[in-house]
Amino acid sequence: MSRPSIMPSAASAPADPFAPADPSAPDYPDAFPSSKKVHLEGPHGIRVPMREVGLSGGEPPLRVYDTSGPRGTDVRRGLPPLRQQWIEVRGGVEETEVSYRPIDGASDVEVPESLTNRPLRATPNGGPVTQLHYARRGEVTPEMEFVALREGFEPDFVRREVAEGRAIIPANINHPEIEPMIIGRNFKVKINANIGNSAVRSSIEDEVEKLRWATLWGADTVMDLSTGKNIHETRQWILRNSPVPIGTVPIYQALEKVGGVPEALTWEVYRDTLIEQAEQGVDYFTVHAGVLLRYIPMTAERMTGIVSRGGSIIAKWCLAHHQESFLYTRFREICEIMAAYDVSFSLGDGLRPGSIADANDEAQFAELRTQGELTKIAWEHDVQVMCEGPGHVPMHLIKENLDKQLDWCHEAPFYTLGPLTTDIAPGYDHITSAIGAAQIGWYGTAMLCYVTPKEHLGLPNRDDVKTGVITYKIAAHAADLAKGHPRAQEWDDAISKARFEFRWRDQFNLSLDPTTALEFHDETLPAEGAKVAHFCSMCGPKFCSMKITQDIREYAAEHGLDTSEGIERAVEAGMREKSGEFREMGSQLYVEDTTGSP
Amino acid sequence: MSRPSIMPSAASAPADPFAPADPSAPDYPDAFPSSKKVHLEGPHGIRVPMREVGLSGGEPPLRVYDTSGPRGTDVRRGLPPLRQQWIEVRGGVEETEVSYRPIDGASDVEVPESLTNRPLRATPNGGPVTQLHYARRGEVTPEMEFVALREGFEPDFVRREVAEGRAIIPANINHPEIEPMIIGRNFKVKINANIGNSAVRSSIEDEVEKLRWATLWGADTVMDLSTGKNIHETRQWILRNSPVPIGTVPIYQALEKVGGVPEALTWEVYRDTLIEQAEQGVDYFTVHAGVLLRYIPMTAERMTGIVSRGGSIIAKWCLAHHQESFLYTRFREICEIMAAYDVSFSLGDGLRPGSIADANDEAQFAELRTQGELTKIAWEHDVQVMCEGPGHVPMHLIKENLDKQLDWCHEAPFYTLGPLTTDIAPGYDHITSAIGAAQIGWYGTAMLCYVTPKEHLGLPNRDDVKTGVITYKIAAHAADLAKGHPRAQEWDDAISKARFEFRWRDQFNLSLDPTTALEFHDETLPAEGAKVAHFCSMCGPKFCSMKITQDIREYAAEHGLDTSEGIERAVEAGMREKSGEFREMGSQLYVEDTTGSP
Repeated sequence: MSRPSIMPSAASAPADPFAPADPSAPDYPDAFPSSKKVHLEGPHGIRVPMREVGLSGGEPPLRVYDTSGPRGTDVRRGLPPLRQQWIEVRGGVEETEVSYRPIDGASDVEVPESLTNRPLRATPNGGPVTQLHYARRGEVTPEMEFVALREGFEPDFVRREVAEGRAIIPANINHPEIEPMIIGRNFKVKINANIGNSAVRSSIEDEVEKLRWATLWGADTVMDLSTGKNIHETRQWILRNSPVPIGTVPIYQALEKVGGVPEALTWEVYRDTLIEQAEQGVDYFTVHAGVLLRYIPMTAERMTGIVSRGGSIIAKWCLAHHQESFLYTRFREICEIMAAYDVSFSLGDGLRPGSIADANDEAQFAELRTQGELTKIAWEHDVQVMCEGPGHVPMHLIKENLDKQLDWCHEAPFYTLGPLTTDIAPGYDHITSAIGAAQIGWYGTAMLCYVTPKEHLGLPNRDDVKTGVITYKIAAHAADLAKGHPRAQEWDDAISKARFEFRWRDQFNLSLDPTTALEFHDETLPAEGAKVAHFCSMCGPKFCSMKITQDIREYAAEHGLDTSEGIERAVEAGMREKSGEFREMGSQLYVEDTTGSP
Repeated sequence: MSRPSIMPSAASAPADPFAPADPSAPDYPDAFPSSKKVHLEGPHGIRVPMREVGLSGGEPPLRVYDTSGPRGTDVRRGLPPLRQQWIEVRGGVEETEVSYRPIDGASDVEVPESLTNRPLRATPNGGPVTQLHYARRGEVTPEMEFVALREGFEPDFVRREVAEGRAIIPANINHPEIEPMIIGRNFKVKINANIGNSAVRSSIEDEVEKLRWATLWGADTVMDLSTGKNIHETRQWILRNSPVPIGTVPIYQALEKVGGVPEALTWEVYRDTLIEQAEQGVDYFTVHAGVLLRYIPMTAERMTGIVSRGGSIIAKWCLAHHQESFLYTRFREICEIMAAYDVSFSLGDGLRPGSIADANDEAQFAELRTQGELTKIAWEHDVQVMCEGPGHVPMHLIKENLDKQLDWCHEAPFYTLGPLTTDIAPGYDHITSAIGAAQIGWYGTAMLCYVTPKEHLGLPNRDDVKTGVITYKIAAHAADLAKGHPRAQEWDDAISKARFEFRWRDQFNLSLDPTTALEFHDETLPAEGAKVAHFCSMCGPKFCSMKITQDIREYAAEHGLDTSEGIERAVEAGMREKSGEFREMGSQLYVEDTTGSP
């Protein structure tokens, strides 16, 4: 069947492909054994998903941000179109035919009818349909209500942040399946996971599974960086199954269309690619419009040249044609296209440093200034903008990146890759980069692009994606704590309390990766009884500081020593007899246990 | 045979147990396939080990800091006593009988005669034998020469840093096997790995193997935190086989001697334990002398109370006895003992925060002030001092720790555990803490105590130790880069150059963990040819930015477009014909490959 478009979905029909997803689908409870999905109810029928972690010992459950989307759905039918009615009610859009025509034999991937969509676009002369446009008009959209409830802010605060360009809500009108989220430095730090096949590896099933897997563990957006065959079809599968915004780098597909020869790219091919992807529902485009001709020689003496794929493609084009790229010269036309679908810009950093040696150099900062100019132009068209940032940067040079970006790019959200703080640990670049990511997140980066252990070495597999996401959840959460996000510390407090009270199961269940925590614990103490024991194998029963602290607290309370006054009294009164029993016992034990010792 | 003590070793005798170790012992080349151990020659027969990484493509080899010690030695004979003659020549020491007497049946671990040592101590009335003492007298010891050569500084700079208390060279006169190293914020950031059995798990073989394993990957010091049976014997095995300084927390063993009852501890038991361990050769002692009675009630309202094992033991003792601990009241006597062997203080932070909620609180900082008072007293006795620090601290509170420590503790080196920047990721605490460790290392922490993935969950195994060490090498190196250590960036530059030039083998061999990098690469591209290919599976051949950059550079050089002047000329002269061939080819390819596309 064809996907219903502008008509409300028939929510109660038994055969409805968008019937409420089964939250007890296998992967969710496997990943989060004591959690269930709950929904916060808001106006306009808004239902914001949260993961509620059930606890023992009379503790109230903890609700945490949930990116996993409806689970247990049929990937051949896609997710329910949550935003469809909001978009419809708002108006200003019309249906249009799919402009993309598949090429015979160019793809061997089937897209079921149920995954096709009838695209919407802004009506001609009807004005932009972007969240920025509405925000500037003073309108609080359901998307803004949704993110306000999701993060614990007032809806009008969300609107103002969007209106002033400090935050974006990437939400293409052709991607009604998303659960809206916001990217801005006054909100929770977000993370992006990259997926995408390459010419060497991976299949469409892998990519859809990676999407579901990445959002299960906490990816806030996903970029589909596919470059091989079947790009269009892969993206269609991903979009219809994605509860999070999807970003792409359209130049990749444009390059495929011209046989992989950068110099052969044309504005027309690129423009058609933008429209094709906007119609499919891509929520943000990386556009490397800041790579100008005069910046390219600045990379000549670099240790690692140009390390952005998009940046190197554009640079090659510019050099071969002796002119500025169409991304730059046609930037206003690009804005018009994006405004008609509410696709957000992610202004690419094509000249980002690819090594410690190249950090914060002339080429990088020249492009950043241009990103700032382009930000203003996009805003003139009511198009939402974030700016991409480095790369490889040693710690002492990180803050300058953020400071300059805030200044030059007029506080548009910053979206950084890491940065990696050293080059010497391939195989561990999730860690070299988490160090930089946490810092730049604290300084104000709004979204962190994850790096997996396979960075520089190969295409990440399922385990790598999970490791990358968890590592970046750590970096983002550490940044939220440091920034004082209102809801960050309650999670740390809940797990620390569980830890101190030896509620082992709660400690596992409150962790970012409960099953790994449980497995690690059970490696040495698998017995069920160890789940309530007042120690673990790290220190053993006699040396557990937390157990001793509890003994101390009991003893202090019993003997009036739980305040400084009580202690002073005890010391001053010379109440040594109180402790006599202990010292006697001690001497006795010493003699018993260490006969022969001096 | 008994271990020769103050006599020079007979270096050439064939049966000499301390004959030069075989650097080609299996684990070294397995871990570092293209590396060999070389030695920098200095005065007094000093030979400083370095790991030399052989490179291809005409690149000079890179020499990096090496902590692995002599490899291929017989663990039943121990390492060669490198420092023996230096100690002997310096004088001021005398042989003494081992004061420790084993208790029948208390241990089931054999210590071969070849691993026993005849202890030295300072002659009575002969003054301290500490590196601080010599440094203050203006004497550059061989140990100082060694570390100067090892790090690339002038020997007198090393001496001054030690003399002023800003750095320590932990080097017990009874641990002649160490290759001297220095801990101070103007040197390379060091890392410590904890090993040690607990009552629940691990054996002596495991512990010696963990030591060798940890130093192979880069641990600069190792703490033996054993708490179960056989503490003395385990330590003897470890010390005689350790090329790096060994630290302990003597209160653990003292507690074992009194049957595990904190209140039963006495000064006499503790004092004898200090002497026993000093005679064995322990290089630094963690002493929680800053836990004062009046600070204990400050922990009453904490989320996680007291999380230092030693701190909780002392707190319990203080409360039960209504008096300050003997660590504090007998601190000068402790200093006298340590001065006689050159054992360094690691002033413990018994009240460090164990959760984000407790960071930088009154209890923590009260103890830090006392650590500062104790530092001055130790210095009066010419005893070297470093101070331990937290713990769990969110990023925005980290710097305050370092600032206060530098101020209150008079610039004595800081030695921190992490800090962990969030509590919510058990199973990944090597990462939560590497984020904090890199930062505090950059701010000035001299040594970072590693955290493994098993933190809070259980005793680390071999893989966990490696993961912890590599993760902390990353944090320490990132800090060195940020601090501008003179030798830090050459490593990053070498690997980045290899990466850019597609010398894959060199890239693997230059990484902290070559075999893991190789394995990750080979997961998707195992063929030998891929080791010289100009792409990997992450982007595939057409989308490799580094390959495209190289094409760009060649093209630019051929066409005079490799400078901004060249580009301007080309643009201004309207030399569009130059690019004609490219555009034609492009159009052609576009038609060929995308027939039917709009």
